[in-house]
Amino acid sequence: MPSYTAPVKDIQFILHDLLGVSTSDIQGYDELEADFTAAVLEEAGKVASGVIAPINASGDQEGCTFENGLVTTPKGFKQAFEVMKEGGWTGLDCDPEYGGQNMPYVLGTAVGEIFSGANQAFTMYQGLTHGAYSAIHAHGTDAQKAKFLPKMVSCEWTGTMNLTESHCGTDLGLMRTKADPQSDGSYKITGEKIFISAGDHDLSDNTIHLVLAKIAGGPEGIKGVSLFIVPKYIVNDDGTLGAANGVSVGSIEEKMGIHANATCVMVYNDSVGYLLGEEHKGMRAMFTMMNEARIGVGMQGLAQAEAAYQNAVIYAKDRLQGRDVTGVKNPDGPADPIIVHPDVRRNLMDQKSFVEGGRAFLLWSASLIDQVHRAGDKDADGLVSLMTPVVKGFLTDKGFDMTVQAQQVFGGHGYIEEHGMSQFVRDARITQIYEGANGVQALDLVGRKLALDGGKHVMAFFEIVKTFIKENEADGALKADFLEPLKQASKDLQAAAMYFMQNGMANPNHALAGSNDFMHLFGHTCLGLMWARMAKAANAALATGASDTAFYETKLTTGRYYMARHLPATGMHLARIQSGSDTVMALDAEAF
Amino acid sequence: MPSYTAPVKDIQFILHDLLGVSTSDIQGYDELEADFTAAVLEEAGKVASGVIAPINASGDQEGCTFENGLVTTPKGFKQAFEVMKEGGWTGLDCDPEYGGQNMPYVLGTAVGEIFSGANQAFTMYQGLTHGAYSAIHAHGTDAQKAKFLPKMVSCEWTGTMNLTESHCGTDLGLMRTKADPQSDGSYKITGEKIFISAGDHDLSDNTIHLVLAKIAGGPEGIKGVSLFIVPKYIVNDDGTLGAANGVSVGSIEEKMGIHANATCVMVYNDSVGYLLGEEHKGMRAMFTMMNEARIGVGMQGLAQAEAAYQNAVIYAKDRLQGRDVTGVKNPDGPADPIIVHPDVRRNLMDQKSFVEGGRAFLLWSASLIDQVHRAGDKDADGLVSLMTPVVKGFLTDKGFDMTVQAQQVFGGHGYIEEHGMSQFVRDARITQIYEGANGVQALDLVGRKLALDGGKHVMAFFEIVKTFIKENEADGALKADFLEPLKQASKDLQAAAMYFMQNGMANPNHALAGSNDFMHLFGHTCLGLMWARMAKAANAALATGASDTAFYETKLTTGRYYMARHLPATGMHLARIQSGSDTVMALDAEAF
Repeated sequence: MPSYTAPVKDIQFILHDLLGVSTSDIQGYDELEADFTAAVLEEAGKVASGVIAPINASGDQEGCTFENGLVTTPKGFKQAFEVMKEGGWTGLDCDPEYGGQNMPYVLGTAVGEIFSGANQAFTMYQGLTHGAYSAIHAHGTDAQKAKFLPKMVSCEWTGTMNLTESHCGTDLGLMRTKADPQSDGSYKITGEKIFISAGDHDLSDNTIHLVLAKIAGGPEGIKGVSLFIVPKYIVNDDGTLGAANGVSVGSIEEKMGIHANATCVMVYNDSVGYLLGEEHKGMRAMFTMMNEARIGVGMQGLAQAEAAYQNAVIYAKDRLQGRDVTGVKNPDGPADPIIVHPDVRRNLMDQKSFVEGGRAFLLWSASLIDQVHRAGDKDADGLVSLMTPVVKGFLTDKGFDMTVQAQQVFGGHGYIEEHGMSQFVRDARITQIYEGANGVQALDLVGRKLALDGGKHVMAFFEIVKTFIKENEADGALKADFLEPLKQASKDLQAAAMYFMQNGMANPNHALAGSNDFMHLFGHTCLGLMWARMAKAANAALATGASDTAFYETKLTTGRYYMARHLPATGMHLARIQSGSDTVMALDAEAF
Repeated sequence: MPSYTAPVKDIQFILHDLLGVSTSDIQGYDELEADFTAAVLEEAGKVASGVIAPINASGDQEGCTFENGLVTTPKGFKQAFEVMKEGGWTGLDCDPEYGGQNMPYVLGTAVGEIFSGANQAFTMYQGLTHGAYSAIHAHGTDAQKAKFLPKMVSCEWTGTMNLTESHCGTDLGLMRTKADPQSDGSYKITGEKIFISAGDHDLSDNTIHLVLAKIAGGPEGIKGVSLFIVPKYIVNDDGTLGAANGVSVGSIEEKMGIHANATCVMVYNDSVGYLLGEEHKGMRAMFTMMNEARIGVGMQGLAQAEAAYQNAVIYAKDRLQGRDVTGVKNPDGPADPIIVHPDVRRNLMDQKSFVEGGRAFLLWSASLIDQVHRAGDKDADGLVSLMTPVVKGFLTDKGFDMTVQAQQVFGGHGYIEEHGMSQFVRDARITQIYEGANGVQALDLVGRKLALDGGKHVMAFFEIVKTFIKENEADGALKADFLEPLKQASKDLQAAAMYFMQNGMANPNHALAGSNDFMHLFGHTCLGLMWARMAKAANAALATGASDTAFYETKLTTGRYYMARHLPATGMHLARIQSGSDTVMALDAEAF
């Protein structure tokens, strides 16, 4: 069975050496002293390793069951969910007015990675509740907030997001679910939604569904979509639960992974719904929480890669096969551990350097979200909007690839379910798909975010890179190994953006055909920037006499690996982009 | 449910326009007239689409069952296997002396792709039998051949390969299975083997296991390994079946995919075994069939990519989401089919150009095998030995990636099992692992094949590329789109080989740390060569007034796509290789 250990030291390095959170003047960051965050992360790590990781493989094996209209989660999930609730983990970064602990999002994200890494399917129950909480918090009336949020913060009630219908996923304007206005100001919701994660289960007393639907007589298409709060059981004014609300589960899906999280067909039959936000502004209400939700999915992709990596390392140190070609390393054993073999190391270094760089990118982005929400920083808002599709698309595409590489370390033992490596791959796979498939992320990046506010935000990103390089170019310890590759990556990224500007006007397909490559090119540049910064931080720690020199030296080596072995991908992505859309679009549909 | 259509036209193009099989003087190739191969492929296609593809998803869903020591295959497998036997498909390229049809391996491989694409788990039963047939055919005594081969050619008896033990997969020298010599010249085999595909099932009357074991008193390690024929039931001298032979199934594995093929723990308890080939030369006996087996696995990876691609195309033409940014394409519908979107096309073109180029590479390699076996061509033997790890490693790594991309076209619908896209991914995954994990292929390529016979074979490969470029450089229709990118790829490949030569002597890790990248670099160069040749063939067909101009024009566009969008990966792989092993090997094992 796979194990999980929270990467506390690596997270601490990012929070403190890299981001210097406790010295930031963002409201609430002063609390984030190293001792405090370490205590939180270690406590989360205990719950992760001791409570929720142990039910990860069994939950995958058993899956959810659907009987008599009700979904039952796998063995141990109810008890583990109680532990999460009792520990206050469900409301860590929520509003204290509703029982939350008001921790910054950056810490919530770090903790979220730990729980997701231990058990993605399990952690989704609270993750989706958090998403619904955020939507109600941002758009609800005071009465709605008072009624729903306290029990959602505590996860006594859980939440869901209902967007997709069988004929429309990305193109939500096609949806058919209807909302009929009632005389009391409520609506009757009727329709069928699919792919509803955590749509029903036995972990909470009530489920608060957020449902997109069209109010009769409203505008056509996406402009006529509104968002509704539809509880499974009506909530009385005194907070007690009333009658069932005509919400039922049609079926649950057989899926490739996340078996322990019920993916439901939800049927709404004249269910009472309460408008959340404005009429016909449902998409806007969804979008305000989209950055956060997408960063959360990027976090999941990274978390699976970390978990898979940990187990690949354990196996590579333990499994004895063959001998080190440069000299026997385990003379008393029948063979050397496979970690001596260069291609196994190449594989592990790919994973390690991605995971650590990706985590820095994730937490930097999360800190920008704090800057937006806690300091009203508009520039940070623009920057994080630009980077969100990259966090989501790049971290999940590469995160998935890394779970596959981790599985490969096990050879045949990785293909059988016994070691749990297959589950990491199967669970990670969904992160590339939900919350906007990665092709949609790439489209959002290139078709929308790049040109937003006159291209101001991408220019701001380039400025950050340029400034960092300039400020450090006299630093011989950074120049060749870090600054030069970063400069090249940034140059490739700029050339790609320039290509889009020069050619996208004449034919938008010239830009869109390169969108996926651009997302990856951007991602590598971001991780290159993170590694250059981390190298600087590691050098600084070494220079000031940090006791744990091995840790910082390892950071430097891992960073050098990323720069030398991951960053050359930017040239390939640029070449693909610059080949334009001619060969991409040339064929008639019939020729495929 | 997914569908499957044999790509007969694409295969015909490769066999005839590209390889010109019927004009070759290889023994038996004169029979391969276009009409004949078309008839064979179409007939295979009918069986594939009508008989074995329909039990692919259901076989995955149901899996094999293990009860009372016996394995039962999923519903419909027995009947379908009868169809394969009755059609003579199991002995297509086998020796006519034992009931085979003596077709060249190139045609057997083309047909194999069709069956594998329709149902990999099912086709493995005969594939493994073919592998065991080949080993007995190459190394058996006349008596052994007469006794076992006729019923294996007809698949009345099936075969298996028993190499792995739980503590040793790649490093077979560690094996513990023992062979005790008996006075009658036979051996008693005792031990436990794992991961035995098709180890037991209900499709045949007897199973002929080929088992690696150590004869007591023999040399230590890999040099003391011998190969044995161990039938499930003893075969009497009159060919009838005798007593059970102490061969039992310990358990069957829960796996990520190929659920319909039983992966068995096989237990041999004083089982009667007959030495195949020489004592202590078991590995040599295995290796003579290794090229063929590995090319067969490369074929499987490609086949899954083709099958997944076909279904992605159907979905992309059918699924309506969003509008073409350059103008509405389906004005009467609520949205345009997603194939209009550039990133969906980018995805499909990645798949299409890989699959068609990969198939050419596969069939070229298969034709080289014919040249070895039917014309005793030593140069072809060297070349195909060199390319075999590339066929296996590159076609399965990329084949898997392409199944993931095909699944992505379906969005959320790809993640649920209903559409079958998850199965393509899960089934393709094993091809990267079995028959030598791809890291072992890369090691074989760089550590062994590259320098074999003084590097003669890789030089021969470069010479083929160089000659082709030289012979065609006056051809304006090829130069910019095909020859230039091929030249660059070949240059990158040569630079990588040169790097290994210059640095690998001082430290073999400098070469081995780049082995995986070299395998991919080599693969891209091979597919680039194939596409350049196919472009030439397509131009020739167009010039001579072929009626189906759309087909040949599509080939040219698809080839241009490969050259423009896949080949730039060679620069990335070269950069990774040239970064050497320093960052790869720097960390102590404890630092991971």
